[in-house]
Amino acid sequence: MGWWSKNQGVVYKPVEEVDVSPESDEVYLRLDVKAPRMVGFLIKIAAWVLESRIIGALLVYILKVENLIHKFISFAELKEPPLYVPYHPWEDLEEKEVKSIPSELSPPEKVLQAVDCLPLRSDVTVNVQKPSFIRWAIQDYSKAYISGETTPLMVAQCFLDAVRDSSNPPLHMSFFINYYAEDILKQATESTLRYERGEPISILDGVPIAIKDEIDCMPYPTTGGTKWLHKLRHCIDDACCVKHLRSCGAVLVGKTNMHELGVGISGINPHYGASRNPYDSTKVSGGSSGGSAAVVSAGLCPVALGIDGGGSVRLPASLCGIVGFKPTFGRVSHLGVLPLNWTVGMVGILAGTVEDAIIVYAAISGKLPPNQPTTLLPKINLPLLKSTNSTRYRLAKYTKWFNDCSDDIKSCCNQALDRLYEHYGWETIDVTIPEIEVMRIAHYLTIGSECYAAISPHLKNMDRTELGCDARVALRLYSSFSSKEYLIAQRIRNRQMQFYMSIFKRADVIVTPTTGITAYPIDDNALKYGDFDYKSGASLVQYQTAGNFLGLPAISVPVGYDKLGMPIGLQFIGRPWSESTLLHLAFASQVMSIPIYKKPKVFYNLLNKRELL
Amino acid sequence: MGWWSKNQGVVYKPVEEVDVSPESDEVYLRLDVKAPRMVGFLIKIAAWVLESRIIGALLVYILKVENLIHKFISFAELKEPPLYVPYHPWEDLEEKEVKSIPSELSPPEKVLQAVDCLPLRSDVTVNVQKPSFIRWAIQDYSKAYISGETTPLMVAQCFLDAVRDSSNPPLHMSFFINYYAEDILKQATESTLRYERGEPISILDGVPIAIKDEIDCMPYPTTGGTKWLHKLRHCIDDACCVKHLRSCGAVLVGKTNMHELGVGISGINPHYGASRNPYDSTKVSGGSSGGSAAVVSAGLCPVALGIDGGGSVRLPASLCGIVGFKPTFGRVSHLGVLPLNWTVGMVGILAGTVEDAIIVYAAISGKLPPNQPTTLLPKINLPLLKSTNSTRYRLAKYTKWFNDCSDDIKSCCNQALDRLYEHYGWETIDVTIPEIEVMRIAHYLTIGSECYAAISPHLKNMDRTELGCDARVALRLYSSFSSKEYLIAQRIRNRQMQFYMSIFKRADVIVTPTTGITAYPIDDNALKYGDFDYKSGASLVQYQTAGNFLGLPAISVPVGYDKLGMPIGLQFIGRPWSESTLLHLAFASQVMSIPIYKKPKVFYNLLNKRELL
Repeated sequence: MGWWSKNQGVVYKPVEEVDVSPESDEVYLRLDVKAPRMVGFLIKIAAWVLESRIIGALLVYILKVENLIHKFISFAELKEPPLYVPYHPWEDLEEKEVKSIPSELSPPEKVLQAVDCLPLRSDVTVNVQKPSFIRWAIQDYSKAYISGETTPLMVAQCFLDAVRDSSNPPLHMSFFINYYAEDILKQATESTLRYERGEPISILDGVPIAIKDEIDCMPYPTTGGTKWLHKLRHCIDDACCVKHLRSCGAVLVGKTNMHELGVGISGINPHYGASRNPYDSTKVSGGSSGGSAAVVSAGLCPVALGIDGGGSVRLPASLCGIVGFKPTFGRVSHLGVLPLNWTVGMVGILAGTVEDAIIVYAAISGKLPPNQPTTLLPKINLPLLKSTNSTRYRLAKYTKWFNDCSDDIKSCCNQALDRLYEHYGWETIDVTIPEIEVMRIAHYLTIGSECYAAISPHLKNMDRTELGCDARVALRLYSSFSSKEYLIAQRIRNRQMQFYMSIFKRADVIVTPTTGITAYPIDDNALKYGDFDYKSGASLVQYQTAGNFLGLPAISVPVGYDKLGMPIGLQFIGRPWSESTLLHLAFASQVMSIPIYKKPKVFYNLLNKRELL
Repeated sequence: MGWWSKNQGVVYKPVEEVDVSPESDEVYLRLDVKAPRMVGFLIKIAAWVLESRIIGALLVYILKVENLIHKFISFAELKEPPLYVPYHPWEDLEEKEVKSIPSELSPPEKVLQAVDCLPLRSDVTVNVQKPSFIRWAIQDYSKAYISGETTPLMVAQCFLDAVRDSSNPPLHMSFFINYYAEDILKQATESTLRYERGEPISILDGVPIAIKDEIDCMPYPTTGGTKWLHKLRHCIDDACCVKHLRSCGAVLVGKTNMHELGVGISGINPHYGASRNPYDSTKVSGGSSGGSAAVVSAGLCPVALGIDGGGSVRLPASLCGIVGFKPTFGRVSHLGVLPLNWTVGMVGILAGTVEDAIIVYAAISGKLPPNQPTTLLPKINLPLLKSTNSTRYRLAKYTKWFNDCSDDIKSCCNQALDRLYEHYGWETIDVTIPEIEVMRIAHYLTIGSECYAAISPHLKNMDRTELGCDARVALRLYSSFSSKEYLIAQRIRNRQMQFYMSIFKRADVIVTPTTGITAYPIDDNALKYGDFDYKSGASLVQYQTAGNFLGLPAISVPVGYDKLGMPIGLQFIGRPWSESTLLHLAFASQVMSIPIYKKPKVFYNLLNKRELL
């Protein structure tokens, strides 16, 4: 492909002529990102050059051509109108083996209903062959509190010790941007008193939960991973999802580290340190919700909240060996989340187990506050994990895409599918998903444009050098998109939505690896100025974009490790409002994988109990 | 205001702090457009210079600064998220004195229901004092056909003679881009046979209706006012609205002239001639649906269809002394309309009388075809004009804005309001509408971006000189908008929607003049290369944008003439789905104004009867 042809626009076939069957003649385009990895001083120079008027414009032009933005977006010809927001009208899917609960219930009532769906904790942990390692789950905390083995206050003290330990040399885990010991101890004391009175609010009472620093949570500033945003936008109330957790008695233990402004997915933050991977602290946690993934992985909390705008919950969860879950767009209120984009990001859950993800999902899927731009969602379906699942799920797999990842991931994820087939008879069905790389680019253009439109008003009031260099490079690229390109990206969104909907006529879910690569080493030079590694970034997000750009629910569940012991995740992408199906599948995958689960190198045992087995 | 300050962004107050009461301290910014009028060869040079890389970019930059795009959009600070599409959830307003009909009825059934709402034609025309002039209405055609006074075929022949006459010197009215005599006579013959058999399909049977050349209508190409678009996009079926009219027996008499690609509103088309104003053929008809307005004004059809993306139905209707009506966004299917934008344009009706607008509104407000991006609209409310209206409407008026127009328009529209108060007791209520000029700019940026995203894929396949120079200038400006600017414009849309909704808590409708100026002379030099008169353009659209940007229903009704005898329109803007309220108000205004209605200089009497009185 010559340089010029990269600048020529594609002429897209009308959607109705595109075949999604396995016999389709659609070409699978392997991921092929053209951008040098820039770390340390190099990225400082790159930021400076890109921000220069003439040379910068020329370089941006070349980057856009080389990365096929001109070919697939700017000069493309297509018939479909734009689809601006991935709303899905509420649909009652009539799923089997679910418990339907009304949206109007209070968070504690919902949590109670959710717990009722779960199998006994001992069934899960004992009935499997030799579980080598399992993290403490919400049910374990609750049981230990009720039995008096420990108290929320004792756990909070352990938590604070652990955070201090992990923050100091040699670990430098940089899990949190802010955590206030006094506030944490106060919450834990109140919870302890509730248990003493025999009146815990819910199973979440006293359970430590961390919040990504992109979500408002009192009494903390919401930095968005920056040194300045919280000075311009003050946090004056809990976000809606945080409010729900607080009302269940959860102890909110601080604001986790994140990639600055969520513009990257390594989790390396030049201001607050790189949130490191508990399985190997020389490696990235992934991002942008890197801190939230790492704290759960390291045992500091059973659950944390993150925001998933381009895989930012699922991919760090996968890299850190935990569960990452993002519901359908509109399912969880976005009120009180930093407005870094408007049509791709949403609240997601990072949890040690699928069961914990279900409990927190029930808690935060609240009745939406007024003025939320979504239809009213009359009920929440929770998976009845107690019963043996007899549903025969059909899993759509696009083999060329599925296998376009590292060898370890490929074999590990294929083995996970084999296990599902052997134990449950759940078949994989071959499909073709057209224009995958086009959607990745269209999503990048969309999240970039929205981020720039949200952030740029603030930029004039600040010293540019307050931004990390990789954020400066990213914002410079984002600023180069025209309104035409944005609109064509939305027309691509419409095409993709139709492709996915026709695939969902053939199968219940789409299955992929969560990421194309496992966690990679942190370059020491990246710590000061940041790391701009668009190539690794693309390998990390290559399976993520449908969840964001099309607003579909998706879940990542750990299914194994690569040769170096770094975790690997399997992802299920569902049709709108099929959360309970995804949770069923993820739970089954977890049950199959528990025997091989490994303990991270950095791990804290807050319950001070001998770990299971 | 220094040059630099025009480049500084505005910091907008949060919506909830903005006061819309008459005591508001919001400043009214008078229309102040900075762009030279360019006609003839000058615009050819302008197109060439603007398309040049360096100088062009500099000029565009200056134009954006001078026209406050930087100040109000690009560098603005605001809190509201974007609102991408002006959908309004269906609301059953429980209006009084309406007939509710189900959307599922067939178009002829709906038309029958609509006719049942209307007063007897003689009541309207006879009961008023000395109507000096009234156009033939649909009811007159039907009556003449049924009584045998004339036949659809005779009318079609008169029509063809009239079009030929108007097209030739000295008139050169340039009403149509295409009309096929053979096809028209065939339809008319079939209709005539139906009347002979005593089986007319509906009151629309045999009635000539013209269609703007932006709407698909077989067997015509859909040129969009260009010389090339129809070669790239073939018309293969009637648009949905045209299908409905055809199913009622209407005779579709050809495709009316329009401003090229709808990018301007003078109605001057360098390829097909200027659609001239029947009240003075040296003056503009307005646009972009200029031909549709002119044919109705000149008596060639009682009704024509247009598309209103930025006042393009209401403003030419006002300039040509007829009724222009655009329903709520989503009320009429957009299927088969040229996709020149996606969020601001919609089908509108140009009619000689409010009654005819009602009949056609009923016919085309069909049950939407599947895959239309809108909620299902369960019913259509039609105004019961038969009964005496006892509803006390409250009309919101922002006096500073209302009076920011030519003196003749100001006094004429104020008199019309006085008459409504005297006869019906309908009061005007003072309000403040904030940021009017900001919305005009945000709408311009939106329609421009969408037009460019829709058209630019075609531009590479064509010789640029096939485009008129004013279209080239417009497209060059449209191409300069960034995705950030587009998104900020959508955030402005959100603000404005909230402002309008709070005004609708105070009043039933907002009342304004339809335009700030009346029809202006056509510069002879404009005919070849077009006319780029952004200043007059802004005066024409200054009252229009809420109908498009916010998707609100709006209607223009003729209420008088300026000193030179050019028509003046009064506009009512309603809350979503309040079409019947608007039609009630427009009908009342029409009844009050009939005594002063004047006959255009160019007028054809297709029924060959002595005109009324």
